[in-house]
Amino acid sequence: MPMPMPMPSEMNGKVDINGYSNPNETAGKVILCRAAVAWGPAQPLVMEEICVDPPQELEVRIKILFTSICHTDLSAWKGENEMNRAYPRILGHEAAGVVESVGEGVMDMEAGDHVVPIFNGECGDCVYCKCEKTNLCEKFRVNPLKRGMTKDGKCRFSTKDGKPIFHFLNTSTFSEYTVLDSACLVKIDSKAPLKKMTLLSCGVSTGLGAAWNTADVQAGSTVAIFGLGAVGLAVAEGARARGASKIIGIDINPDKFIKGERMGMTDFLNPKDLEKPVHEKIREMTKGGVDYSFECAGNLDVLREAFLSTHDGWGLTVVLGIHPTPRMLPLHPMELFDGRRIMGSVFGDFKGKTQLPHFAKQCMRGVVNLDEFITHELPFGKINEALQLLVDGKSLRCLLHL
Amino acid sequence: MPMPMPMPSEMNGKVDINGYSNPNETAGKVILCRAAVAWGPAQPLVMEEICVDPPQELEVRIKILFTSICHTDLSAWKGENEMNRAYPRILGHEAAGVVESVGEGVMDMEAGDHVVPIFNGECGDCVYCKCEKTNLCEKFRVNPLKRGMTKDGKCRFSTKDGKPIFHFLNTSTFSEYTVLDSACLVKIDSKAPLKKMTLLSCGVSTGLGAAWNTADVQAGSTVAIFGLGAVGLAVAEGARARGASKIIGIDINPDKFIKGERMGMTDFLNPKDLEKPVHEKIREMTKGGVDYSFECAGNLDVLREAFLSTHDGWGLTVVLGIHPTPRMLPLHPMELFDGRRIMGSVFGDFKGKTQLPHFAKQCMRGVVNLDEFITHELPFGKINEALQLLVDGKSLRCLLHL
Repeated sequence: MPMPMPMPSEMNGKVDINGYSNPNETAGKVILCRAAVAWGPAQPLVMEEICVDPPQELEVRIKILFTSICHTDLSAWKGENEMNRAYPRILGHEAAGVVESVGEGVMDMEAGDHVVPIFNGECGDCVYCKCEKTNLCEKFRVNPLKRGMTKDGKCRFSTKDGKPIFHFLNTSTFSEYTVLDSACLVKIDSKAPLKKMTLLSCGVSTGLGAAWNTADVQAGSTVAIFGLGAVGLAVAEGARARGASKIIGIDINPDKFIKGERMGMTDFLNPKDLEKPVHEKIREMTKGGVDYSFECAGNLDVLREAFLSTHDGWGLTVVLGIHPTPRMLPLHPMELFDGRRIMGSVFGDFKGKTQLPHFAKQCMRGVVNLDEFITHELPFGKINEALQLLVDGKSLRCLLHL
Repeated sequence: MPMPMPMPSEMNGKVDINGYSNPNETAGKVILCRAAVAWGPAQPLVMEEICVDPPQELEVRIKILFTSICHTDLSAWKGENEMNRAYPRILGHEAAGVVESVGEGVMDMEAGDHVVPIFNGECGDCVYCKCEKTNLCEKFRVNPLKRGMTKDGKCRFSTKDGKPIFHFLNTSTFSEYTVLDSACLVKIDSKAPLKKMTLLSCGVSTGLGAAWNTADVQAGSTVAIFGLGAVGLAVAEGARARGASKIIGIDINPDKFIKGERMGMTDFLNPKDLEKPVHEKIREMTKGGVDYSFECAGNLDVLREAFLSTHDGWGLTVVLGIHPTPRMLPLHPMELFDGRRIMGSVFGDFKGKTQLPHFAKQCMRGVVNLDEFITHELPFGKINEALQLLVDGKSLRCLLHL
């Protein structure tokens, strides 16, 4: 017998949500819900009651069930090197949830669908989306100056007294409800465990895709990964799944190796323990250098070591770390003639809407092991505690339950 | 009726060559012949009578019929940025000739074969030669410190009073006879016109291979070429042969465009005539940037323009110019996240011994037009005049007849 659905309270056309919703009651109306609002750089996020407008044309409003925190959130929270410090705003870009309602023209999703937000959207129509060589989208790629919706530049979030609250990275997932362009939302199999699917929203896709799509790591090849946070470990998981014969993890924190071993790493180097540059040691270990190296540390000296760690002739270095420094690439042009290559990778070169549904299925089949990435779980209200865990390097991903 | 073969004069076991030879008379003996010897940086080459030893194990002695001068010779002649200024020495690496005799163990060539020297050799046995991703060879790649033969580090050239004359770039073609490792010699179809085949020895293979092998230029794509010397024009010829829809040549010397047009260039830009950076103009002309750019100027500011001229998301810049400067790559690491790529190319990524025979046949079939590259022809004795033509930017290739 169906249980009676509790009705959210309604006042002045706004629907107050208390941890539950019925799309029939909320669609087309402003939703009142909780969000963790950033009011200034490095200030603790404040749990506020905010208003979330209905989705407009080609937009979707979703109920967030899980969100987690990535270093990009951390960096934005600190206000580091930001071109656009818009406050108040709602951070967060790694999440999973359920569609609450869709705006006009959204054909590929409907209320109740399980979805994962992607900060690097895919409109499907632009010259980039139609090119198989890139996953950047003309309209929905990362734009640090963007703080409203693509359609009108305006916010769908506001304070209860009507002041706008700015968006972040096309997603803003530190909220019970958020509005996204449908280009930034991927519908996934309803049988996929939503909690783990949160990881596909950024970190795991970024690292794993860098191994699979950007580098195209081959079976039997050798790999070095510099920086063993979630992204570096996801690279390892991707390399392991592809059958790499040697996966060397490099980090100055030896605690990372415990996790690294469980993700398929075969060797570990702590530069602090070595009397020679890491690249020399790696070349010794691999008859001249690894086939692929991944820079996940966001440090240019590390980047140079990663570059020199690869085998000349064919070595490829994939840059994943963020380098907020005026320093240029520490490579000499003549070094390119040794046949080493370097390239960047955004969101693991996944075209989100096209490829993530299949990737989600691969995760369900166990091709990739997602369990190891979730080291902590907390209720949404403890988001500042979760932030601190990441600041302290204690968590890979702390999953927040909404 | 066969003509009687004139016999070279012989004295003290050395065979004096006067522009002709009979292998039966010279094999196994020291040959006395003419060579253009460099005695010091930027000093005119001196036509000397020198001794050329017989080839040792896995070496080949060839009679040079044609040689030409490339900017690498020019740079070495000037003694610019050289780690190893060995004098006296014999420069030259672009040539074509005929095998005079082979050393022990050489199985793929015999006296009379038509051959082209390659400075970037292919032993066929090392880990590099067995890898399809590179054309570098462990033993016979470019090594600026090398001045003798690989086998024993010694010279096969000497003055008449027995002092060694050093080798250059595995080849030393400014001599009527030279000795090379068989790994640095490609046998080509005896019906191929040897004069033109000289071009395959370096410049044309480098530029054309950069378009075909390194960049893999696709039909309908757009290309920008910075620096319209022989290498840049060879890139254009390669792009034209592949069906590129737009080939933009960039040079500060407008005279280069006359030749460029004949090689298939569709547009020409002289940075001196522009009020904005070249890359901005190119992006306007190509809806956001070219698919491929080639830096053939050896200038880092030009390299940056070449990089920024490509389309974000998929643009590839191939570096061909030599950059003898302590300056590092003028690219910021975050620029890699725009999806632009950069890589170097040596000898057009051709594996010389494996791929050049087929390339020679393509040239014979007219896939590539080699005629435009030879702008001047002179007798060997006028080699200093040929050097000056290149210094003055008046010649693409001046072919010297030996």
